[in-house]
Amino acid sequence: MKKLINDPDDVVDEMLDGMVAAHPDRLRRLSDTQVVVRTDAPLDEVGVVSGGGSGHEPTHAGYIGDGMLDGAAAGDVFSSPTADEFEALVDACDGGEGVLAVVKNYEGDVMNFETAIELAEMEGAEVATVVVNDDVAVEDSLYTSGRRGVCGTILVHKAAGAKAAEGADLADVQRVGQKVVDNVGTMGMALTSCVTPEKGEPTFDLGDEEIELGIGIHGEPGTERTGTMSADEVTDELTESVLADLDLDEDQEVLTIVNGMGGTPQMELFVVNRRLQELLDERGLDTWDAWVGDYMTSLDMAGCSITVCAVDDELKELLAAPADTPALTVR
Amino acid sequence: MKKLINDPDDVVDEMLDGMVAAHPDRLRRLSDTQVVVRTDAPLDEVGVVSGGGSGHEPTHAGYIGDGMLDGAAAGDVFSSPTADEFEALVDACDGGEGVLAVVKNYEGDVMNFETAIELAEMEGAEVATVVVNDDVAVEDSLYTSGRRGVCGTILVHKAAGAKAAEGADLADVQRVGQKVVDNVGTMGMALTSCVTPEKGEPTFDLGDEEIELGIGIHGEPGTERTGTMSADEVTDELTESVLADLDLDEDQEVLTIVNGMGGTPQMELFVVNRRLQELLDERGLDTWDAWVGDYMTSLDMAGCSITVCAVDDELKELLAAPADTPALTVR
Repeated sequence: MKKLINDPDDVVDEMLDGMVAAHPDRLRRLSDTQVVVRTDAPLDEVGVVSGGGSGHEPTHAGYIGDGMLDGAAAGDVFSSPTADEFEALVDACDGGEGVLAVVKNYEGDVMNFETAIELAEMEGAEVATVVVNDDVAVEDSLYTSGRRGVCGTILVHKAAGAKAAEGADLADVQRVGQKVVDNVGTMGMALTSCVTPEKGEPTFDLGDEEIELGIGIHGEPGTERTGTMSADEVTDELTESVLADLDLDEDQEVLTIVNGMGGTPQMELFVVNRRLQELLDERGLDTWDAWVGDYMTSLDMAGCSITVCAVDDELKELLAAPADTPALTVR
Repeated sequence: MKKLINDPDDVVDEMLDGMVAAHPDRLRRLSDTQVVVRTDAPLDEVGVVSGGGSGHEPTHAGYIGDGMLDGAAAGDVFSSPTADEFEALVDACDGGEGVLAVVKNYEGDVMNFETAIELAEMEGAEVATVVVNDDVAVEDSLYTSGRRGVCGTILVHKAAGAKAAEGADLADVQRVGQKVVDNVGTMGMALTSCVTPEKGEPTFDLGDEEIELGIGIHGEPGTERTGTMSADEVTDELTESVLADLDLDEDQEVLTIVNGMGGTPQMELFVVNRRLQELLDERGLDTWDAWVGDYMTSLDMAGCSITVCAVDDELKELLAAPADTPALTVR
């Protein structure tokens, strides 16, 4: 498999340098780490940080900036950052008002963030955590106890970041992050496997006439391997699974995300969004906002995920608040 | 090849509906056409419009909104919109101050836009044109006399749209669009072919150990088919070709774009950007802004293009002016 990389061992290092080189006014890399923070961190407000394995770009460093994250730690491809890196991240983003750590529910991330938080707290920092587990596909999986954290994480970044920017205290920033988690569900699917730089060949085999529903963002097995389906059929399968999990009242307002997995043309994402909105309308739900794009990817995997988040007035205000980051700008 | 589509014959229609469904506050589709315009078109200022074949998303409709395009016509995949559709576009975006048509230099687009403009002018409209031909790879090609128009087109949309939003007259809006064309160069490459929905298999064959330099955004042949190269080597090849064409003075300020072709993970684009910025620095050029992302794609092609645009104070002001579109937001 061909890739635009140099040495696979250098890919995360070079990617981070390339991100900072694209946004020198916004991003700063902590020396000798894979941690990226705002140039002006720490701010005089609650710090909001995240992190996890690389390969999900623009997650996480792409969401650093006004109104979202203060910093993010990048692990190697599909590997958790170390506890040391998480601790350096928390330390760099702690301006004295405490730090919220947004953690996707993978065992490595959770464990290393927990260790980092213990270390930071021993130094006097106040740290709260929100664990994101929005993937409705499977209860436990290859790298998780409980559900996986996937694209809904971006909405946690957005809501918590906006609340922090308002000057709210740590408990309140944590509360709105958790509120997103309590109201969001996601399910994904793959047409093709991702290919890691290290391995250089597909992580799993998927035939020319096969797709996988409920796939994870590292190529972990999903709920069902099935024959190819139309975009409308795929959309119905994913959306029904998410809605069954959320169990929303009629007329509920929702934010939706059609998320590309990295190798999917935007054309296809919009075809999926067309059916998604039609289906939600049929179900009596009210789309307040609809995002379409690559938010939480799995390297070059072709496929998509669908996220639905129930929103109330508070979440709408936070999700629509101004943000200025490399990957998401809200005026 | 697997795709998230329904009937290939419906893909453009469904995509456009899906785009409008994602942005009902911003986008409106003219009935019985593949033309999308601002919901509030025409404005009381110069209209800026564009269009071309589909398959390059977010180009063109993704750039409709405050400070960029007023509307765009979408042809079928890799096919020009008809003259009738272009005329409907010009008509819908003409608020009485004239319309600038930004046309990528492909024979079909140029011919159909010319016919549309003649028809519109017979109805009393005032229309000016900027033809974009930023691809430095080949002089003539499969679908062009002269050079192809590719990713530099986005900068023409941005500069002309910002100038129109200032209330400038048609000649002045055209002038700044042409100024971008006179100062921009792009070259692309492919790791893999794109696959059109209609054909369902690769447009051209590229071996497991081959890449193509100078590729067009429809998979048209480039300048050289060669063995695989590292990201740094690819970056050097593309950048040197662009810089040789632009022939810039030392210390010239530039805007750069590392553009993904549709199937390229962002990780790889940032690796390319790292080397690009290093190389420009070595050459004594001064990067004023660096964009990294999918701006002008070729369906699911894996690969990238590099754009360099020399900027003066006027272009910097226009390129940094506020814009609010589905694909590009500038605060």
